[in-house]
Amino acid sequence: MDIRKMTVEEFCNRVKEKTPVPGGGAVGAVVASLGAALNSMVANLTLGKKKYEEYEGLMQEVIENMELMLERCLKLASADVDAFNAVMEAYKLPKEDPTREEKLQNALKKAIEVPFELVECARDILKYSEIVAKWGNKNAISDAFSAAELARAACKIGEYNVMINLKSLTDEEYSKRILDELYEVIGEAKVYYERIQEMVKENGFTKI
Amino acid sequence: MDIRKMTVEEFCNRVKEKTPVPGGGAVGAVVASLGAALNSMVANLTLGKKKYEEYEGLMQEVIENMELMLERCLKLASADVDAFNAVMEAYKLPKEDPTREEKLQNALKKAIEVPFELVECARDILKYSEIVAKWGNKNAISDAFSAAELARAACKIGEYNVMINLKSLTDEEYSKRILDELYEVIGEAKVYYERIQEMVKENGFTKI
Repeated sequence: MDIRKMTVEEFCNRVKEKTPVPGGGAVGAVVASLGAALNSMVANLTLGKKKYEEYEGLMQEVIENMELMLERCLKLASADVDAFNAVMEAYKLPKEDPTREEKLQNALKKAIEVPFELVECARDILKYSEIVAKWGNKNAISDAFSAAELARAACKIGEYNVMINLKSLTDEEYSKRILDELYEVIGEAKVYYERIQEMVKENGFTKI
Repeated sequence: MDIRKMTVEEFCNRVKEKTPVPGGGAVGAVVASLGAALNSMVANLTLGKKKYEEYEGLMQEVIENMELMLERCLKLASADVDAFNAVMEAYKLPKEDPTREEKLQNALKKAIEVPFELVECARDILKYSEIVAKWGNKNAISDAFSAAELARAACKIGEYNVMINLKSLTDEEYSKRILDELYEVIGEAKVYYERIQEMVKENGFTKI
C-alpha cells in the first residue's frame, strides 16, 4: 500500500473503511510527515531575510534534516501497514503449526519497532519545531507551534501502538528494554513540547 | 488550491515550500479529517459484531456524523488557504486606498472564522472519539485514542490561527465575543480529551 501516492481524499477514505489498515499508526506517520514539512516551511520562509541572516546555517540544517525526516515518516506510514498485516498473517496460521508462535512473536516485534521509530521521529521533529519557533521567521511562528502539535500527536499515537503490540509479546526482557527506551524518548519529547508551550504563552497564542 | 486532490506526498511538498500556504491551518484541517476518518473506521469495525449489537444504532450515528465532518474539514483545508490569501491581498492594497482598512478587517474576520470552525469540528471529533473508545470494537481502541490525539492537535492549531489573526483585528467587540466563544469550545474539547486520557490509562496504553 503506497500511501504517499494516494490523494488526501483517497487516504481519508481508505482510513475510514471497515478494515483495520491503514489505521492510527499509518495516520500518525503521515501526520509526523506534515509536521516535518511545516518546520521546513518556516525555515524556508526565514532564509534570505536580512533580519535572520545569522540563522541561515541553522535554517539550512533544519531543511536538510526535515527533508530526511519527511521521507522517513512517509516510509513509516506504509511500513506500519505492512507490519500490521504480518501480525494478522501470523494469527491466521493454524494453531498446530509449530512455527506459528515464533512467527507471531517476530511479527509483533516488527509491529512494535515501527511505531517506536515514529516516537523517535516525533521527538526529533519537536526539537526542530523549537528551533524554528525560536530563531525562525516570526511571521510563521504559529506554523512552528502547529508543527509541534502534530509531532506531539504522532508521539502519542506511536506510544499507543507500541503498547498495544507489547500486550501480546511474551519476551519479557525485550518488553522491558523497549519500555525503558520508549519512556526515555517520550521524556525528551515532553521537554521540547513543554518549552514550546511556554513560547506559545509568551507570544500570546493562547489565553489558557 | 484543491488540497483533497493532491497526493499525500504532493501535499507535504506544497506545505514545505517557501510560501506561507498551505500552512498550519490547512494542515490542521486535513489532520482533523483524518481524525474523523479514524473514528469512522472504529465504528465500521464495530458494526455487525454480535458482541456490540446493542451499539449498532450509535455506531451508525458516528459514521453519518463523521462522514459530514470529514467533508467539512477537507473543505476547511482549502478555505484556510483562500482566507489567508485574501488577507495577503488586502495587505498589498496601496496604503492610500480608502477601502484598504475595511477590506483588510473583513479578510481578517474570515481568517478567524475558518480556524474557529476547525476548533468546533475538533471538539465534535473528540466527542465521537470518546463514544467509539467506550462502546466501539475494543480491538480498535488505540485507533479511537489516536483519533482523539489528532483532534486535540487540530484544536490547538485552530486556536493558534484564531489568535494570530485577532492580533491585527481592530473590532474589539468582535474580538471579545470570539475569544469568549473560542474558550468555551476549547473548554468542552478539553473535557472530552481528559476523559479519553483516563481511558488510555485504564486500558494500559501508557505508563505515564
